[in-house]
Order: sequence, then structure tokens, then C-alpha cells
Amino acid sequence: MRFFSDNAAPAHPRVLEAIAAANRLDTAYDGDEWSQRLDGAFSDLFGTEVRAFWVTTGTAANCLALAALCPPYRSILCHRDAHIEVDEAGAPGFFTGGAKLVLLDGAGAKVTPETVAAVCDGIRDDVHQVQPAALSITNATEYVLVYHAAEIAALGELAKRRGLAFHMDGARLANALASSGEAIADVTWRAGVDALSFGFVKNGGLNAECMILFRTELADEVAVRRKRAGHLLSKGRYLAAQILAMLEDGLWLDNARTANAAAKRLAQAAPQRLAYPVEANEIFLKTTDEEADALRAQGFDFYEWGPGQIRFVTSWNQQDEDVNRLASAIAAL
Amino acid sequence: MRFFSDNAAPAHPRVLEAIAAANRLDTAYDGDEWSQRLDGAFSDLFGTEVRAFWVTTGTAANCLALAALCPPYRSILCHRDAHIEVDEAGAPGFFTGGAKLVLLDGAGAKVTPETVAAVCDGIRDDVHQVQPAALSITNATEYVLVYHAAEIAALGELAKRRGLAFHMDGARLANALASSGEAIADVTWRAGVDALSFGFVKNGGLNAECMILFRTELADEVAVRRKRAGHLLSKGRYLAAQILAMLEDGLWLDNARTANAAAKRLAQAAPQRLAYPVEANEIFLKTTDEEADALRAQGFDFYEWGPGQIRFVTSWNQQDEDVNRLASAIAAL
Amino acid sequence: MRFFSDNAAPAHPRVLEAIAAANRLDTAYDGDEWSQRLDGAFSDLFGTEVRAFWVTTGTAANCLALAALCPPYRSILCHRDAHIEVDEAGAPGFFTGGAKLVLLDGAGAKVTPETVAAVCDGIRDDVHQVQPAALSITNATEYVLVYHAAEIAALGELAKRRGLAFHMDGARLANALASSGEAIADVTWRAGVDALSFGFVKNGGLNAECMILFRTELADEVAVRRKRAGHLLSKGRYLAAQILAMLEDGLWLDNARTANAAAKRLAQAAPQRLAYPVEANEIFLKTTDEEADALRAQGFDFYEWGPGQIRFVTSWNQQDEDVNRLASAIAAL
Amino acid sequence: MRFFSDNAAPAHPRVLEAIAAANRLDTAYDGDEWSQRLDGAFSDLFGTEVRAFWVTTGTAANCLALAALCPPYRSILCHRDAHIEVDEAGAPGFFTGGAKLVLLDGAGAKVTPETVAAVCDGIRDDVHQVQPAALSITNATEYVLVYHAAEIAALGELAKRRGLAFHMDGARLANALASSGEAIADVTWRAGVDALSFGFVKNGGLNAECMILFRTELADEVAVRRKRAGHLLSKGRYLAAQILAMLEDGLWLDNARTANAAAKRLAQAAPQRLAYPVEANEIFLKTTDEEADALRAQGFDFYEWGPGQIRFVTSWNQQDEDVNRLASAIAAL
Repeated sequence: MRFFSDNAAPAHPRVLEAIAAANRLDTAYDGDEWSQRLDGAFSDLFGTEVRAFWVTTGTAANCLALAALCPPYRSILCHRDAHIEVDEAGAPGFFTGGAKLVLLDGAGAKVTPETVAAVCDGIRDDVHQVQPAALSITNATEYVLVYHAAEIAALGELAKRRGLAFHMDGARLANALASSGEAIADVTWRAGVDALSFGFVKNGGLNAECMILFRTELADEVAVRRKRAGHLLSKGRYLAAQILAMLEDGLWLDNARTANAAAKRLAQAAPQRLAYPVEANEIFLKTTDEEADALRAQGFDFYEWGPGQIRFVTSWNQQDEDVNRLASAIAAL
Repeated sequence: MRFFSDNAAPAHPRVLEAIAAANRLDTAYDGDEWSQRLDGAFSDLFGTEVRAFWVTTGTAANCLALAALCPPYRSILCHRDAHIEVDEAGAPGFFTGGAKLVLLDGAGAKVTPETVAAVCDGIRDDVHQVQPAALSITNATEYVLVYHAAEIAALGELAKRRGLAFHMDGARLANALASSGEAIADVTWRAGVDALSFGFVKNGGLNAECMILFRTELADEVAVRRKRAGHLLSKGRYLAAQILAMLEDGLWLDNARTANAAAKRLAQAAPQRLAYPVEANEIFLKTTDEEADALRAQGFDFYEWGPGQIRFVTSWNQQDEDVNRLASAIAAL
Repeated sequence: MRFFSDNAAPAHPRVLEAIAAANRLDTAYDGDEWSQRLDGAFSDLFGTEVRAFWVTTGTAANCLALAALCPPYRSILCHRDAHIEVDEAGAPGFFTGGAKLVLLDGAGAKVTPETVAAVCDGIRDDVHQVQPAALSITNATEYVLVYHAAEIAALGELAKRRGLAFHMDGARLANALASSGEAIADVTWRAGVDALSFGFVKNGGLNAECMILFRTELADEVAVRRKRAGHLLSKGRYLAAQILAMLEDGLWLDNARTANAAAKRLAQAAPQRLAYPVEANEIFLKTTDEEADALRAQGFDFYEWGPGQIRFVTSWNQQDEDVNRLASAIAAL
Repeated sequence: MRFFSDNAAPAHPRVLEAIAAANRLDTAYDGDEWSQRLDGAFSDLFGTEVRAFWVTTGTAANCLALAALCPPYRSILCHRDAHIEVDEAGAPGFFTGGAKLVLLDGAGAKVTPETVAAVCDGIRDDVHQVQPAALSITNATEYVLVYHAAEIAALGELAKRRGLAFHMDGARLANALASSGEAIADVTWRAGVDALSFGFVKNGGLNAECMILFRTELADEVAVRRKRAGHLLSKGRYLAAQILAMLEDGLWLDNARTANAAAKRLAQAAPQRLAYPVEANEIFLKTTDEEADALRAQGFDFYEWGPGQIRFVTSWNQQDEDVNRLASAIAAL
């Protein structure tokens, strides 16, 4: 029974159907009818004009955004546990041409205006020190803490005041919104976000992610950077079709709700063991090595998250039976 | 009736079936069972040990190979019409960190040992001039001329003697082999090729290409570069499955034969108009603007290739009826 | 008797004196009193507000300018014999983060609006082809042809119309102006030049060159890029003092006149052998190998410039006696 | 009275004399007789074969070394107060093509094998996390703590075991050795150092630093990288001559001893105020704002080093009288 990663889950059947339906002769790259509908579909979703770029990985979405927002000779502020810092093989350095990540502290991988301001204040404003150009947060965070609209707006306001662009890694934005019930516009552009990596693959997609640009004047540059990075697929319609299927009838939110619910059920099995509040679809449990082994012996698959901590991730198609079994097993530890 | 690009064609049904069959829970990235079978499948195909890296674009395949073969401060020799020079938005410069492309002449985008040697001889061996590190050829070329095994071996030998790595852009390698009937080993590693971009998308794939590394000692570096460029998909099994389906029962060669046959039929309609011999699945016709307009008026879709020349590309699913109609229309010009 | 390169010449005594005079305790980097006077001195010289950046090489001056004028994903148009293309080890690719040089033809390394326009017209305006961002010319050219104010203005106008930034490599700008007698403002900013590499080292300097920015809004970025490239010397006063000494009483023009006059004398010795008109301080002679050997045997040192051509460069301190001897030797061939 | 930075001090008269003596016609770049003597001079000094590269800044020396030792997709371990991290405008990211700096803790900017090992152990060995390729230390550190031979050897051994290249930023190596009395070979190559930035400018030089390569097989690559970064000066003899003058009769050590002695005298004036032991030519004093103001009012110039701390740097030509006055003033606080 796999609770290892939401990347391990299959694609949702409606996503596969959309791919099959797109399997027709059309125009190459992003000139096809599906790709051409993306900007409109997301502009409708966000309630403002946006430009949407399909890509195949969150790393590509994140780094194309960062490259457009930060010149090579400046830096991006992010949490020290941010995916762009610890799990993307240095991709931000590659895409930006050498920009730095400057690391922020904060419980549960969450940053606050205070930590951002303090780090900025410690940077001398001269040519010797690298000046910050952008702030990047992950929502939900790497420990699935959810940023609420007001928190993001406070960061956005600070970013604006300090001349920082504002990027959101939304690999699990669907889970965050399914959890908070807040409006997608309120946690993104209305809160000052300039570019968003909107995750679909962890949430039932097959291999399509989307980068949403609220600063539409950067779209031409991003389009070129996408091509130049080898991310302009020649049959882009299969990516666009996946994304449109995820948006249709709110499939993206439904999937996220299912995954969140499974995590919540697990969390309730052992509230005293939680390393972090379970606000979305991951739970981090404090266990001994023996306890972890015992769970493994019962056929549960998960990730060891440092010493004395294990991580379970639930997905859109987590089976109720498996979840119940795991909940019982955790409770019985 | 579309003869615009083989990228416009749909994916082959067996490719779609393979994707559906892979739609199960498995391990993320390239740890899944399909991805794990790739090295073996290609090692069998080539008759030597290789390492295979799925990616989603030919640009990614080409440039990951070039980045592994050429340091930032050296250059890559290629034809001035090479895809890496004219159609990849400067991606080689991005992936290599600033290496140069040095351009070679040659009819039909084909290079010869003589042209390579002459350009190398013109480069002063000092720190002021950029020293070449690699040679890249496209097979079939951008005008679908086919390099034969002996021609490639001659280039490979020269490359070795000059200390150049040797890369082949095989976006249409299947078409080249379907045309020449030569063995894939003979036109690649036995001829000195170090890395190959093996194209599947133009040939019935959906969005999986493959970079084949014959110099397996570079595999660790390439794996990191793939991740760092945002090209390590989190659900890689859908790419691996496509590629395995293309390899099964020689689907890749069958598809290429079909496409080539269609092109040959078109070529026979007006042999006197051919700008290049039709050795694979493209035909370049010399026409007046009026003739081009006349074809368009009959519902044929194609690419204007500079003044007085138009390009038709045939694909694995080109309909016989359409081909016959176009052949008649061309003959009637 | 050295006629190999103006880089081989010593520094002018007044430059050395200026260095000695600056040998006092002052502020580090470019905060010292000499560095602080540069902007003013050049603004006076050019008759407009400029920002001046001392560096130690022409390559640094050229490439800092190009990096500020061209993003990594676009290209710079230059002559195929331009120093940035053939003699800077790929530095433009390094400083810009991978931008391309697109090469122009033209006799004597001179480009015209027609050649620029033709190359631009051949670039498809899409994301697949690299779009040009800048034009770079060398004045005097690598064959010391001099661009006149009207020629530069025509290029500048074209650049503006096409959205291209305009850079001038002025490694031998002093020689060009000493030759043409034109005003420095007329061949630079008034003609549309955005950034100029103003050469001093070939003209009697020790190790200070200067990059002049007419688009002063880019100064902050250039200042950071200079530091980041390791070109912000900690004792910058010794560079600034050299440059100020060169500007004082027109030493830079006097030196150039001397060098030009020597070249002119040599040119008159064998007008029928000249590969190019001698408009500044280099002469390119057509000779047989035997003739070249004969000159060498008489103690003259020069550069073999391809088959059947040799290059002599004259400098600010070329000795009359040596020049006369060489002139006689050439006449006697 | 300036105690602001050793970069503010003038050049030593013998350095100026050497420049004047080199003011002759010679060969360009590094083909001149002075440059040609560098490898030999340093090989003698180190007692092993080395390759020496003059450059004009410590940043260039550091980053050329790091670029040769670390590929773009890996990381360099250094102290979080290291000059390459905090004072070089992100130059390591630029020169390496995007490699990361991974930051280590340690009092007085000193790192230990334990801190290095602990950080390495925390990096998962997979393609998602950036793998370390090099270790860089500064000797003397940014707080002028001196690494002793045994400490460096322990780091060198660890580096070797972990597959890390080993770089030393020796901007104040002269001061470190003047302080410890240890042999230069023992603190460099015998301790496992692969490349050294050997500082001269802070120690009486004018604008010449030197990068020493103990892994001589990297010399060709470094030579190209130096040119490509715009650091191959066309009249290199003026740099080489400076360095040779510094080496002659141990001027570099004499200058460092003078500077160190001045710092020691200041340290003795208020031992209880020292933030760090004074092991070379800087002293960091704990003072109140009022005390700092009082010193400034008496005409002393220094650097505010964060709240409650001020920094004095002494140089090779610090005047005894000034030092005594400052010592008295400090004692009297």
C-alpha cells in the first residue's frame, strides 16, 4: 500500500480520455486548438487576464518563472526547505544564469514578512553583495502548511515595497485551496503574486503542469525561454488537453479534496505524533525506527523524513480500504 | 489535407494504448518498471551497452547530449541549416553554458569530412579562438538526405582524430534507416557516434523522445543535467511506455516506411521540380508563388521554404487518398 | 624591429607618471578621487552625460556592454571578422549567458545597413529562431577601415528602427578619429551608439580600458556585472589615473596620430600591395612567402595574416628610424 | 588616519619600480619575459611544479579556480562569511555557470572537518539534490583567524576522501604565514590544496593577484577560462612584473609582518574588547556606538562591522605614529 508520493499515483481517467480525444491531426507546438484555449480558461478561473504556459514539470514551471523575474546577478529569497532549493538539482541557478537562492527560516517551511524583511535588511546595498530580486513561497508548503490569503497578501505587500517580484510554487495549490476554501484569486494575483507554478501532476494529471503569468508583459520572454529550455513540446495539444480536463467541472479541486480527506483521516489516528498540523495531503509522523519498521512490515510504503520522522502522502485515488488500514496501524503503534 | 509537419500527426494507437496500460501506481521519476527497462531495450536494439534517457523534446535530447560533450568554452561544429542552429531558440548556448556553434556548408544540409577538416584547420590553436569540441550531424538531414554508414564512419574517424565528440540528431533517424535499410548499429556507435537523439514524436509518438548515450561513462552527468533542466518528469512511466511501444515489433520502422513511401509517391509526381532527392519523408518542390497558391486553393497545407520553394512532410498516418490527390495536383501544375 | 601588435608597445611615460602620482592611500574599488572624476571627464569629452567604467581589457569592455544590451536568449549581429567573434574565446557567450553572435559579411570587416537588414529579414519572427537584440561594429575595423559619422548614423538609425541596441568596439577609436578628423560625439551617441568600448591600451595605456555607457539607465546593472565578472579592481585609482592621463591635453589623439602617420608612411612604400586602404595604424600587405621571409630576415617582426598576406601594426612609439627602414625594405621587395 | 581596508593602502615602491622597469616593448598577453618567469618562480617558492595565472582581482582568482574545480551542476562548500559568498556579487555562480555555494558555520569564519562532514552527510546522494564538488576555505579567514598546517591537512584529507576538490582563498595568505611561521608548501599542496588564490594587492601590490594551480593538468582549461572572462590582459608584463617584485627577497612576507605587527599593537591596547583573537592584520573591537563615534571624532577611519563591532585593518605601510595614536585612543575608551 503506497503512501510514498502523490507522484506515484496514476493519472485520472478523465485526463486519459482528454488525451485520447486530442489524438487528432492539428498544428504543432502550441498552435493547436487546446493550447489556444488555455489563456482563456485560466483567465476565467482567476478572474483576470493571465498567460498560461504548459510545461511537463514543476521544476520547469518554477524556473521559467524565476528566470523571468530575477536577473542572473540578483537573488531569490525562499525557505531553506523549499523545493527549488533542495529538490531541483540547482535548476534555478541554471535557468536564471547563476542567480542565488537566499534561504529563510520558518517552522513548517513557512516564511513571514518578518523573516523576509530581516534577511533583506542584512544585505548591504552595494555592488559587492547580491541584491534580492524575488521572493518565492510554496503553497501548500513542503510540510503542507497552508498560506492563507491574508498571509500571502502581507508577503505580497512587503515584496512590492521592497521591489521584489513574487512567485508561488503551487505544486499543491489545489490541496491548499481545498483545505482553506479560499478563492484562487485571493491567494494569487490579488495578494500580489506575479507568477504561479500551478501543479496538476501530483493531483491526477499525467505529465502537464502549468505556469501562470499574472504579469502578462513578460509572456513573450517566457515563451522564448520555454522553447530555449527544450520545453516547447511539438505536440503540445496533449498537455493542454490534460490541463483543460483538470479544470473542467472542478476536477482539480475534487481530486485535492479526496487526497486531503485521506490525510485528515490518518492524522486523526495519532494526533499526538504529528510533527506538523495536517493542512493538506501529507502527514509527518514522529516514530521510532522500530515503529517505522513495524508499519513497513505490514506492507505500508512511505518516506523516511530524517531521523525519527516518517512521511505519508495521500493522493486523489488513495483507496479507502488502504487508508483505513493505515489509520488503524498508526493508532495501534 | 495537412502536409505541414510530421509533428502535426496524431500519436499511433499503440502508443496511446501503452500509456493507458502504464496508468497504474508505480514509483516516481524514472524508478518505475517501464523506465527501468529502457536501457536494456535499447542495448538490445543497438547490440551494445547504452544508456537511454527519455525526454519530451528533440531540443532537450540534442542539448543534453551537447552539454555532456562540449564544455562551455569550446564549440560544436554543425551545418548552418542544422535544427540546433536554426530552430532551437539558441538552446545549445543555454544548455552548454555558452558554447558556440560553428557553421559548416554543404548541399542538402549534409557535411563531409572535407568541410569539417577545412573549418577546423582555419581555427588557430590558441586561447583567443574557440576550439572545437564536438561535431553534430542530423540524419536524415533537414532536407532528408540520408547519411550512409560509410559516410558517418568517415566523419566519426575524422572526429576521433581531431579530438571531437560526435553527436547525431536523429529526429528522423527512423526515416533514414527505413530508407537505407542499413543497420542501426552501423550508422551510430560503430561509426563513432557518442550520443544520439532518437526521435519518436515525429514518427507516431505522443511526447517521448530518447537520448541514447554510447559513452556510458557520461550517464551520471547526463542524469543530473536532465533533472536540472526540468526534464526529469515525475511520472516518467508514461514516456518510457511510449518508447517501448514504438520499439515493440519494429513499430518505429514500420511507421517510418509508411511516411517515406508517401513522400516517394509525391516525388514521382514531379521529379523535375525536386530541390533535393527525396530520401525520406519530406519533399521540397520548386514552384512559383502562383503554383503554391493553386495548391493551397485545393486544400493542401504546407510550409513555404524560402522563395520559390515549398515543403511537404508526410507522416506515419498520411492518408493514401490525400497523398494521391496531392500527387495528382503536383503533376498537374 | 616590432610591428607585431600595438599591444606590444610600452605605456606612455605620462601614463606611468599618473600611476605614480596616484600611489597614495585612498578609498578602495571605484570610490577614489580619480575614479570619481571619470564620469565627468568623459561627459565633457562627449558633450553629453555618460557613465564610464574602467576595466582592464577590451574583451571585458565589449562583453559588459553586450551583456547589458542583449538578453541571453537573443543575438548580437556583428561582422564575421569582428574581434568579439574571432578573438575573445567566446566571451560574449559567457558574459551574456549564452546569446548568439550572428555573422555579417562585408569587405574589410565593415558592415552596412543593407547587410544588417538582409540578415534580419532572414530571421523568422517566432520563438524557434533567435531574435536579434543588438548590433556591434568595430571602429576602426579589424582591417582599420574607418566608419564615418554618416555611415554610423545610418546604422544607428536602422538599429533603432529594428529595435536593436548599438555597440561600438572602439579598441582603435582613437586611430579612427585621428584619421577622419570627425568629432567623437558624431561617431558615437549622436549616431545612435548606446555603449562604446573605448580603447586605451593599444594606444599608450598600461592596462586601463574604458566602457562608456550612453544609456545611463543601465549603469547600475553594468556596475554589478563588472563586479560579478571580477573586473572591479580593489585599487581602481591606478586605472582611472591612466585614463585621465590619456585624456589630458588630448594625449589619446596625439598618440593615435603618431601611429597612423607611421602606417601611412609604410603604405606609401608599396601602394600596389595593400590588401585594404590604410585608414589607421595597420597595413595588410600581399606578399609571397619568400618576400615575407625576406622581411623577417632583415629583423622585422609581423603577423602572418592568412596565406599571402602579412600584417604590420604601428604604435604610438614606433621609432621613425624603424619605420623608414621597413618602408625601404617593403619598397625594395 | 585610515584603518579602513588594506585595499586603501598604496602600492609598495618596489612594485612601482618593477612596473617602470617592465615598460618596454615586448610580446602581448602572457608571452612576455616576465609572465614566462611566473611558473618557475612559484614552482620554486612552493617546491613543486605549479602553474601560475596572473589576474587583477581576488574574485577572478577565486572564481577561475572554482570554475575549473566544480561543474555547473554541483556545489562548493564554504563558510557563510566567506568572501566568495558575501562579497563577490555572486561571481562564483557566474564563472561556474550556476554552481551553488553551500554554507558552513564556524566561529571566526573557520570551518572544521566535522562541519564539512556533517553538511555532506545531510545531502542525499541522488539527482534531486546538488552534490558537492569542492571545498573552499579562506586563510587567514575573514576574521583573520589562521588555519595551521595540520588543520588544513585534516580538511584536505577529508576533501580527498569525499571526492571534493580543495580551494584556498589566500587574499591574506601572506599575513597568515607571517603569523604562523609555517612553510607555504605545508599549508597548501602538501595539505591537499588543489588551487590557491594568492593575494598581493592587499599586501602592497598595485593590481596583480595570482592564481596558483597545483593540479597542473587543469592549466589549459584555466588559460581559456581566463581569456573568456576578459582577464587575459594584453600587456600582461605589468602584472607579472609586480608579482615577481613581491616575491623577490621575500617582500610579500616582510609587508605582511609589518601589517600584522601593527594589528598586534592595537590588539594589546584593549584585549578585553576583541571579538576574535588577532592572528593577522585585522582587529574586530566590541564598542558602543558612542565609543565608535569618539574614535571617529579623533580622525580614525574604520568599518562598522554590524552592531556593536568595528573593524580596523592594518597594511604594509601603516604609519607607526598613527598606530600608536589609535592604540592610545582605544585604550582610553
